[in-house]
Amino acid sequence: MKFKVGCELDYQVSANSTFIFNVNVAKTPNQNILEEYLCLEPDLNHEEYIAPVLDNRYIRINVPSGNLHLSYQAFVDVIYEETNPTTINEVPIAQLPLELLQYIYPSRYCQSDRLMRFAQSEFGDLLPDYSRVTAICNWIYDNVTYLSGSSDQHTSAFDTVTERAGVCRDFAHLGIAFCRSLNIPARFASGYAYKLQPPDFHAYFEAYLGDRWYLFDATRLAPRNGLIRIGTGRDAADIAFATIFGMAEMNQMKVEVECLETHSDSDCPEYTYQAISHQVSENNSPV
Amino acid sequence: MKFKVGCELDYQVSANSTFIFNVNVAKTPNQNILEEYLCLEPDLNHEEYIAPVLDNRYIRINVPSGNLHLSYQAFVDVIYEETNPTTINEVPIAQLPLELLQYIYPSRYCQSDRLMRFAQSEFGDLLPDYSRVTAICNWIYDNVTYLSGSSDQHTSAFDTVTERAGVCRDFAHLGIAFCRSLNIPARFASGYAYKLQPPDFHAYFEAYLGDRWYLFDATRLAPRNGLIRIGTGRDAADIAFATIFGMAEMNQMKVEVECLETHSDSDCPEYTYQAISHQVSENNSPV
Amino acid sequence: MKFKVGCELDYQVSANSTFIFNVNVAKTPNQNILEEYLCLEPDLNHEEYIAPVLDNRYIRINVPSGNLHLSYQAFVDVIYEETNPTTINEVPIAQLPLELLQYIYPSRYCQSDRLMRFAQSEFGDLLPDYSRVTAICNWIYDNVTYLSGSSDQHTSAFDTVTERAGVCRDFAHLGIAFCRSLNIPARFASGYAYKLQPPDFHAYFEAYLGDRWYLFDATRLAPRNGLIRIGTGRDAADIAFATIFGMAEMNQMKVEVECLETHSDSDCPEYTYQAISHQVSENNSPV
Amino acid sequence: MKFKVGCELDYQVSANSTFIFNVNVAKTPNQNILEEYLCLEPDLNHEEYIAPVLDNRYIRINVPSGNLHLSYQAFVDVIYEETNPTTINEVPIAQLPLELLQYIYPSRYCQSDRLMRFAQSEFGDLLPDYSRVTAICNWIYDNVTYLSGSSDQHTSAFDTVTERAGVCRDFAHLGIAFCRSLNIPARFASGYAYKLQPPDFHAYFEAYLGDRWYLFDATRLAPRNGLIRIGTGRDAADIAFATIFGMAEMNQMKVEVECLETHSDSDCPEYTYQAISHQVSENNSPV
Repeated sequence: MKFKVGCELDYQVSANSTFIFNVNVAKTPNQNILEEYLCLEPDLNHEEYIAPVLDNRYIRINVPSGNLHLSYQAFVDVIYEETNPTTINEVPIAQLPLELLQYIYPSRYCQSDRLMRFAQSEFGDLLPDYSRVTAICNWIYDNVTYLSGSSDQHTSAFDTVTERAGVCRDFAHLGIAFCRSLNIPARFASGYAYKLQPPDFHAYFEAYLGDRWYLFDATRLAPRNGLIRIGTGRDAADIAFATIFGMAEMNQMKVEVECLETHSDSDCPEYTYQAISHQVSENNSPV
Repeated sequence: MKFKVGCELDYQVSANSTFIFNVNVAKTPNQNILEEYLCLEPDLNHEEYIAPVLDNRYIRINVPSGNLHLSYQAFVDVIYEETNPTTINEVPIAQLPLELLQYIYPSRYCQSDRLMRFAQSEFGDLLPDYSRVTAICNWIYDNVTYLSGSSDQHTSAFDTVTERAGVCRDFAHLGIAFCRSLNIPARFASGYAYKLQPPDFHAYFEAYLGDRWYLFDATRLAPRNGLIRIGTGRDAADIAFATIFGMAEMNQMKVEVECLETHSDSDCPEYTYQAISHQVSENNSPV
Repeated sequence: MKFKVGCELDYQVSANSTFIFNVNVAKTPNQNILEEYLCLEPDLNHEEYIAPVLDNRYIRINVPSGNLHLSYQAFVDVIYEETNPTTINEVPIAQLPLELLQYIYPSRYCQSDRLMRFAQSEFGDLLPDYSRVTAICNWIYDNVTYLSGSSDQHTSAFDTVTERAGVCRDFAHLGIAFCRSLNIPARFASGYAYKLQPPDFHAYFEAYLGDRWYLFDATRLAPRNGLIRIGTGRDAADIAFATIFGMAEMNQMKVEVECLETHSDSDCPEYTYQAISHQVSENNSPV
Repeated sequence: MKFKVGCELDYQVSANSTFIFNVNVAKTPNQNILEEYLCLEPDLNHEEYIAPVLDNRYIRINVPSGNLHLSYQAFVDVIYEETNPTTINEVPIAQLPLELLQYIYPSRYCQSDRLMRFAQSEFGDLLPDYSRVTAICNWIYDNVTYLSGSSDQHTSAFDTVTERAGVCRDFAHLGIAFCRSLNIPARFASGYAYKLQPPDFHAYFEAYLGDRWYLFDATRLAPRNGLIRIGTGRDAADIAFATIFGMAEMNQMKVEVECLETHSDSDCPEYTYQAISHQVSENNSPV
């Protein structure tokens, strides 16, 4: 599936600052970047670092005071694999690939250790398969109100589970925390999202089931097969779209996603009950 | 109903210290103290302060280093009133006696402001009467595990609602927080509890419904008509059984409650579905 | 000292709601209200409740959907007493009037129990007198940045002591928490404040030293002898200027304070090193 | 420097459980394991996973109910490099190797984002070099009391900075959080510690300065050149010495460290003001 995605970011920089951006689409075997443009005004040098294993791409720019305008555009071909969810099981701890251990431990915003009893009581008796993670997403969708401005950068899953309001990032954190409480590896993902209204960077999560990572989005704000991945991490602390060291303020942000399947609308991503992964089946390493 | 209650407390005091004890049974129109003994070793002076309105009794003792042994015993006649719960309604904010306002505001351990959505979602659709507070107690009993050592002096209702384990004090805090989230005035109560095993000071809560305070105990560890009140407050921060300013350690604590209705066991408190208050009906001020 | 104070509050009410306002100047032996006007549009009934001992005045109004405009104006004569601070000592716990106990216990926003070691280490070696509370205020002023929008209704002294930014309410909470950590009774106060820029409701705190409550304000944004008291409580949870049960939004708020000592500007409140209390010396009860 | 280290761990397992141990000494170019024994009773299979880059070694064991006894012993040759601390500078964000970014972001127990102003105010004016991290360690040592039992598994740097008591893990978390607040990459380390009394697993931290990770230990409980590394991570959430999935309780734990430099005592590790790293200088990748 082909997409055109992009963003424009404007900053007022009041002193020499270093920016780390994580807005570039990840290059993976299943996300083929056909063309890509990163344009800076003023025309500053930038460095790119690609995190091993995760493939997150970080751009560092040292910026003098004045204005900074970043414009990014990419044409991407994303391969989704759809799987019948009834065939997908959880992996017992005794068999879990050990490189996934880090994804069942608690992290800053996903205090799974404090949600153990809660998760056991809500989800403990469910079948240990794909449907349990679906039940987690349904619970979040049913019990947490999506409400702009209801949370801030300190809000964690432990807050959201009780305060019952949040934005996409909070929905993802809570989904991850519940999964880890049940020993299901889970990670945070950021991306461009087809059909998201209003357009913005989006956050969702991935859970490791069977032999790969599957995509989940408790917000139901975008079809999962319309998510173009920017990065993954243990939680939002790992993959902010911009981290600023210095003094700067954002003036404006614009995000765009377009589906390029021109034959007909029905070729574009739609909501589905299928399990969605980025993985082509011959590759069995847990990417 | 007549009870003999008492406690023995032993401390090792390593420097001049001031103790504030709140272990004496409250003297109220419905708790008639027939006899009472407070014995200190060494034989130190003590001062008593009775809080207005609440009737909590605080004993202050200035203690030199060495041992302190406090022994308290009281013979009390407690009048409980039993009411048919189906006749008792919540009081709308618009009619609530304004002296009760403080009991719908959040407090240290009962952050009702952060539990609003949760309480609305669990209890918001229930009838605004006595049965809603019963539903709150049932929810706590069903969802929170009574587990010694699972909480500490920092644990609040906001923790317990998710961590789902606690002791009597935590059960009471959560009940209070839920009530206040729904605009039902609620307060913390400490007391001696008939049949409590192992014997200890007990914590429960009171909710203001109709024209008075009713007793609730989500732990189900003692019959409500076997609770002999020591004190009430907004939460546990108000009525610790002992507060020590100085340096001392408790060596031993013993608590005793006996029912003195000698005719037959069946005269002693038993579990009941009736609403229990301490109030005799001619007195309508919210005590 | 005579003042004219007042406020105008505008709300958009979208469903039947109950408002509790606490904006009226407290009537005390030292705050003589010469004239007072409370005007509501629409012209609704209101009820007043005056809390015993504290003298806080709460106004309850039941409001239908539509607009609500509250306008309050008072002419007040406030008696401040100035005392040489070097003559004022802390009261040891062993002698403290026991009705003040509640003001050394931790409360929702003033977790003095968690600041014990910090307070001991910063202030533990100072003389146990008025100058120690001054040192607390100086520490706060020197270490915490006054920054609008840096805190919210959940922010507590435990947050502020580390995050080091806040508004008047946070400065007061931290001052109170430090005092209580050192066994100095302290309470939260709200009021109208002469010279406060921009004009707004103000929060400060009072500490009990010697035989009365003294006023402290770590923000240094208004002279303490220009504070006209609205209410006092254990912390901000007790004395919000407005609590709304229902659905309403504030559109506008205006606060005004004028000094009516017309002879010359120098008769109006000025910053002073003297200790300021509201108490006239013949009255020795801890009001 | 040669050491013999080891531990014995005894568990009572009450249902089939999976254990993940992280007690093996890390194999790195600077930690040469001469001999190593891992002995299990009963004689169960175990799997080892070595984390890429970090070299942490995780052992997974599936254990039936009954007793589990793990005994580990290793003879290790550790190469420490001592450097004159006055020659070591911080690395500006603009030049920082980007793979270290993750170590300046906040993590579960090291909420550096909430300690920014505190760290700026205490350490912001110090020279941006090795001496600043020393100042951080000195501050922690001077202001935080080492006190067994004063913290638990939920305690974070944000708690410790105010509560001022903790154990080695809390000292390390606070050191890391301060460093990250100042944009100094820092990570948590666990290890065997020569001279630690009573013997136990130890926690300390590493800060990235100049071209490598340097060891710091704010507890001053063991010489830094007597630390034998088990693992490193972003905080304690990453490298628990044992994680149990199932039902088991630890009965006993014994840890041993011996220096094998037999010529004389003075050949064994001693406290030093030198900067200590595990790195031999020809290897410049940030391990």
